[in-house]
Amino acid sequence: MRFDIPLLTAALVLACSSASAQDTPAKPKSAQEIIDAAPASDWRTLDPANTLYLELATGRVIMELAPAFAPEHVANIKALAKGGYWNGLSINRSQDNFVVQWGDPTEDEKARKALPKKVKAKLPVEFTRSASKLAFDRLPDADGWAREVGFSNGFAAARDPQKGEAWLAHCYGAIGAGRDVAADSSNGTELYVVTGQSPRQLDRNITLVGRVVQGMELLSVLPRGTGALGFYEKAEQRVPIKSIRLALDLPKKDRVALQALRTDSKAFTDAVEARRNRRDDWYKVPAGHIDLCNVSLPVRKPPAK
Amino acid sequence: MRFDIPLLTAALVLACSSASAQDTPAKPKSAQEIIDAAPASDWRTLDPANTLYLELATGRVIMELAPAFAPEHVANIKALAKGGYWNGLSINRSQDNFVVQWGDPTEDEKARKALPKKVKAKLPVEFTRSASKLAFDRLPDADGWAREVGFSNGFAAARDPQKGEAWLAHCYGAIGAGRDVAADSSNGTELYVVTGQSPRQLDRNITLVGRVVQGMELLSVLPRGTGALGFYEKAEQRVPIKSIRLALDLPKKDRVALQALRTDSKAFTDAVEARRNRRDDWYKVPAGHIDLCNVSLPVRKPPAK
Repeated sequence: MRFDIPLLTAALVLACSSASAQDTPAKPKSAQEIIDAAPASDWRTLDPANTLYLELATGRVIMELAPAFAPEHVANIKALAKGGYWNGLSINRSQDNFVVQWGDPTEDEKARKALPKKVKAKLPVEFTRSASKLAFDRLPDADGWAREVGFSNGFAAARDPQKGEAWLAHCYGAIGAGRDVAADSSNGTELYVVTGQSPRQLDRNITLVGRVVQGMELLSVLPRGTGALGFYEKAEQRVPIKSIRLALDLPKKDRVALQALRTDSKAFTDAVEARRNRRDDWYKVPAGHIDLCNVSLPVRKPPAK
Repeated sequence: MRFDIPLLTAALVLACSSASAQDTPAKPKSAQEIIDAAPASDWRTLDPANTLYLELATGRVIMELAPAFAPEHVANIKALAKGGYWNGLSINRSQDNFVVQWGDPTEDEKARKALPKKVKAKLPVEFTRSASKLAFDRLPDADGWAREVGFSNGFAAARDPQKGEAWLAHCYGAIGAGRDVAADSSNGTELYVVTGQSPRQLDRNITLVGRVVQGMELLSVLPRGTGALGFYEKAEQRVPIKSIRLALDLPKKDRVALQALRTDSKAFTDAVEARRNRRDDWYKVPAGHIDLCNVSLPVRKPPAK
């Protein structure tokens, strides 16, 4: 999920961004150059109270929760993590071009792992929120799925000004709470992550709770399940979850310091524009457009002081 | 790449389509029900003269070429396959949420595998085509990247009626010919397949030659390369290609018979509408929209006679 990628000149490759062009200062800056030049104040440090670590055998997936959009779900997810609910459970589903999903794979609901203390068995629907108190940095680009799209404190989001509603968008890396047919049947135990073409038809139909900020490549490569909906058919195919923990519950030395580029910063706006209309030598026709889910959200390690 | 997926009622899952509802005939049909009921004449058999088989250790990836959009590239690709050019080469790149790419990984151009007979070393740009002779079944939905989007004989495509141009769209599974900075620097030896969020900014900037019709899940799970642009850094990380052959060059018994739903059929139009506005119990808010790259293109084995 790098925001910008250099042109590899040695090979006949599909390139998709600008070469560094420091010797030709007249050229417009590339998105990466804009990001690299962003002042420290354009970066925010991820809050360990809203950061989850999913530990797999292959590494750590880091997720940022969005309490502004799904406060009840996020509170439950934190309680589930604190109670060690997912530790020893598994990723049970990987459907090509759609999602991966984890939780307790036991079919018999009564035989499933007990919920830890302070975890609610039932949550309200949090498909949309009142837009009035939510930040919203609007993308000027047209969108077929919503009247307005943009970013709310680092999350891809959409808005209906007539209804005064806002909601998170199903872009690559979005994390949601699986549910049954009843709208209010999610409790946060079954989480899914979008690994395919943005399934925006799910927007406003299910509660999104955050997004993966690092480690998507550990989820997106999981073998596709051959059962219905991409569920693994055999227990041994499931991908074990070592643990899911809140960063705040770990000693500081075990946390990963990460910063995200503020989506209300000038650098972000400029970087999006540089991607909307690529001006490097490789691109012959600037698109003049960018889709909400084609906008990458830059994350970095804090620079050495 | 199944077009429709049943609701698994036993578990608290993320469902995304209708349950079969044969006991409630008043309900609108699901996309899958519409496809299943399509008459035989709505299906076309893939032409072995335009079908490529990519053989990996994990199985066969089947690709349909689009000579109507890229005649020179497709002719070269067929000659490359006939000459066994890719046999023994490798997939050299897997960039998360973007593409996989194969070809000769040798950095020194002069040391690369020689081109087989009848293969052209240089091809013209085929980014767009004159729209006048191309089928185009327009999707009514708004699109930010192009004035018109739709389908042309089974391929997702876009069109500019003012310029009279049409082109293939970078949707999941689209196959393109990698190039260097010069627009006419592709020769079809380096092919890439879209494995991530539709990178439509590449439309009209590079020549697309077809799409994967079966086996995407063999490409999409390839470990992501850790080098620039997702290239594998070590030779042993590359994914060996056993062969890429034209179906026509194989004995009939070794071919896979496949049919694709005609994108100019009523069944296809109706199935798209059923996906644009889901009417099953799970969906609470029909989207009223579908994105070009969210439309799946159904493929099946021919039914037993």
